[in-house]
Amino acid sequence: MLGPKGGMNWKATKAQLPPARAIWVFLTRTRFLLCVALAGVVVLLWRGISTSAQEMQRYYCWGPSKPPMQMTLNEQADWNAHLQTPVIFNHHEPVVVNSTTIKSVDLNPIRSTTKAIANKERILILTPLRDAASYLPKYFDLLSLLSYPHDLIDLAFLVGDSSDDTLAVLAAELDRIQDGKETEAFNSALIVQKDFGAVSGQTVEERHAYAAQAPRRKIMARARNYLLSAALKPEHSWVYWRDADIVDSPEKIIEDFIAHDRDIIVPNVWFHRYRDGVDIEGRFDYNSWIESDKALKLASKLDKDTVIVEGYKEFDTGRTYMALMGNWRENKDEEVKLDGIGGVNIIVKADVHRSGINFPAYAFENQAETEGFAKMAKRAGYEVIGLPNYVVWHMDTEEKPGNNV
Amino acid sequence: MLGPKGGMNWKATKAQLPPARAIWVFLTRTRFLLCVALAGVVVLLWRGISTSAQEMQRYYCWGPSKPPMQMTLNEQADWNAHLQTPVIFNHHEPVVVNSTTIKSVDLNPIRSTTKAIANKERILILTPLRDAASYLPKYFDLLSLLSYPHDLIDLAFLVGDSSDDTLAVLAAELDRIQDGKETEAFNSALIVQKDFGAVSGQTVEERHAYAAQAPRRKIMARARNYLLSAALKPEHSWVYWRDADIVDSPEKIIEDFIAHDRDIIVPNVWFHRYRDGVDIEGRFDYNSWIESDKALKLASKLDKDTVIVEGYKEFDTGRTYMALMGNWRENKDEEVKLDGIGGVNIIVKADVHRSGINFPAYAFENQAETEGFAKMAKRAGYEVIGLPNYVVWHMDTEEKPGNNV
Repeated sequence: MLGPKGGMNWKATKAQLPPARAIWVFLTRTRFLLCVALAGVVVLLWRGISTSAQEMQRYYCWGPSKPPMQMTLNEQADWNAHLQTPVIFNHHEPVVVNSTTIKSVDLNPIRSTTKAIANKERILILTPLRDAASYLPKYFDLLSLLSYPHDLIDLAFLVGDSSDDTLAVLAAELDRIQDGKETEAFNSALIVQKDFGAVSGQTVEERHAYAAQAPRRKIMARARNYLLSAALKPEHSWVYWRDADIVDSPEKIIEDFIAHDRDIIVPNVWFHRYRDGVDIEGRFDYNSWIESDKALKLASKLDKDTVIVEGYKEFDTGRTYMALMGNWRENKDEEVKLDGIGGVNIIVKADVHRSGINFPAYAFENQAETEGFAKMAKRAGYEVIGLPNYVVWHMDTEEKPGNNV
Repeated sequence: MLGPKGGMNWKATKAQLPPARAIWVFLTRTRFLLCVALAGVVVLLWRGISTSAQEMQRYYCWGPSKPPMQMTLNEQADWNAHLQTPVIFNHHEPVVVNSTTIKSVDLNPIRSTTKAIANKERILILTPLRDAASYLPKYFDLLSLLSYPHDLIDLAFLVGDSSDDTLAVLAAELDRIQDGKETEAFNSALIVQKDFGAVSGQTVEERHAYAAQAPRRKIMARARNYLLSAALKPEHSWVYWRDADIVDSPEKIIEDFIAHDRDIIVPNVWFHRYRDGVDIEGRFDYNSWIESDKALKLASKLDKDTVIVEGYKEFDTGRTYMALMGNWRENKDEEVKLDGIGGVNIIVKADVHRSGINFPAYAFENQAETEGFAKMAKRAGYEVIGLPNYVVWHMDTEEKPGNNV
């Protein structure tokens, strides 16, 4: 029995309900059916409106007002970016190097252009020295007049095999020039000390003897290469080789040479000598020359280890010497192509040296040092240019001790 | 009038004096004369004694007990040094350089000897890299095993023309090796970045084509020279060229090679390849050779700008290849003289490079790069030695991308 005890039973309940007929009549009345229909419409409308509103809110905030299935891939990506934590599979996470023992240099941006000053291109001036104490004050006087910005210039010297006070005078002159009082200081200066063992004495006769020439040129070449190796830094765009015994040169020489945009370029080198009060304008540098068939034929017959030295009866080369050409009163920018060059004054694009072109301390195609340098550069495809009318004045050396030659 | 007014005058004074005669008698008395004589003797004696004493004091304190006129020159100098302010005319006063922009290096004490470790000689390990990311972990594993003291070793790399993550992997591996946790850190590491522009593609066929060889070797030579120029410092005694794709080499290789005391020395380079489970011990490096008359005759007919490349039908050189000689089971110290060398593994005395011997990026006696390096070194009088029984194992490259070749 489910009902309360002794209480309601089916019969009693049935007696209390309205008669089934009355309910039927009520449910089928038109007014009731209309109410139901109206309520249904209201509910359906409400549901429709509220769903749209929800969707609009959802999609307007985080993306286009479209359901995901209608979105483009880009829209989906936009939308997802706001809905979930982004996961980026980065196979190129930066490597952070913290060790101070690891350095990096990028040589790719180093250029040698005609807009050197604007591009702040750095210049390295290299000078080998041997028993050159007496020339250094003049050397630094001329150097301090150079118009190329001094803070873009580094100086480097090789001091070797000197019996005089070259090192002390150099240090004193550098200290004077670098204190910035008289002249704008240079960016830096480096002194490299290295003795190679002098081959011969330094008297005029000994220096001029033919037998002494090749060993002397080879030692000079080694000295230049040691200096280059120690001083050339990744930041340099140009290398300017300048001997200590120049007595006069234009202040704008660096800019003038850079403007030519050549791999290797040299001026003409002359000297003043007064006879009866007249300047004979002596020609100094017979190492800058244009190759001749005669010399090539001569070289082909020589042993590969023989070095041809200009100006000796042993070798009649028939070459064309730039020293005998030109005139400083004429167009300074006139160029000639050279096959051998002297070392008094050379401006080189640093990448020529970095590519391995240097001063042979051996017989390179029967030439050594600066002449071998020109031969090597030409073999490697670089241009070697001389300016016959652009004159740098060397001291009138009756072979007094001077450069490391 | 000098006297006081109305006071004393000569007459009054005279009257007060004793009579002249009385004075005379007193002065000529024997007793008085004796007293005077005695006093004179005493004074003279005293003066003599005191002068001697003074002299003695003077000369005993500051010099020999002699008067100046009897001194030797040295004794006078000693004596004068104490008597007066010394004046030294020093024409060699030290030059004190205070500018921080002036640096000095002395290359004279840099030596390359067989007592390298005892002398703390510094070694520079140079590795050119191109698309070498996959080889670097192995490379550094081998490097960290080197028994030469790591604090005497500097590392330098040239990364260029790479399409893979060589730079990133290199940086990560260096950071790992330099933190000093797994292995003893090296003294320093330098990464040089420089692109030369790849000449050819890197497929086996393209790399092997004859026409591509000479330009490839020239670019490789430039890369080596750029790396050398940027990395070689004045303190280095030895330069060790080591390619990235070595898979096995002795831990004592540096010590072993240094013990030979040669200017330039290379091992034999072989590779492991297994056929039917047997190691055929392949021969890798055909760039290490002894020159032949046939090749010299061939070269004399070639244009000076032509580069001979080994292993092509274009050039039948008839040279003797070290790769085909030797056996790693026999005496490792056996030497042969070579005329051309490969670049996988070279140990060079640093002064050879400083003297200007590098990797020709042009036709040097019809050779380029490492073979030209050997030719150049021999021309300059250096010795080039190979160890046919000392084997370094290269990876078995069916010309997969590897070094900057």
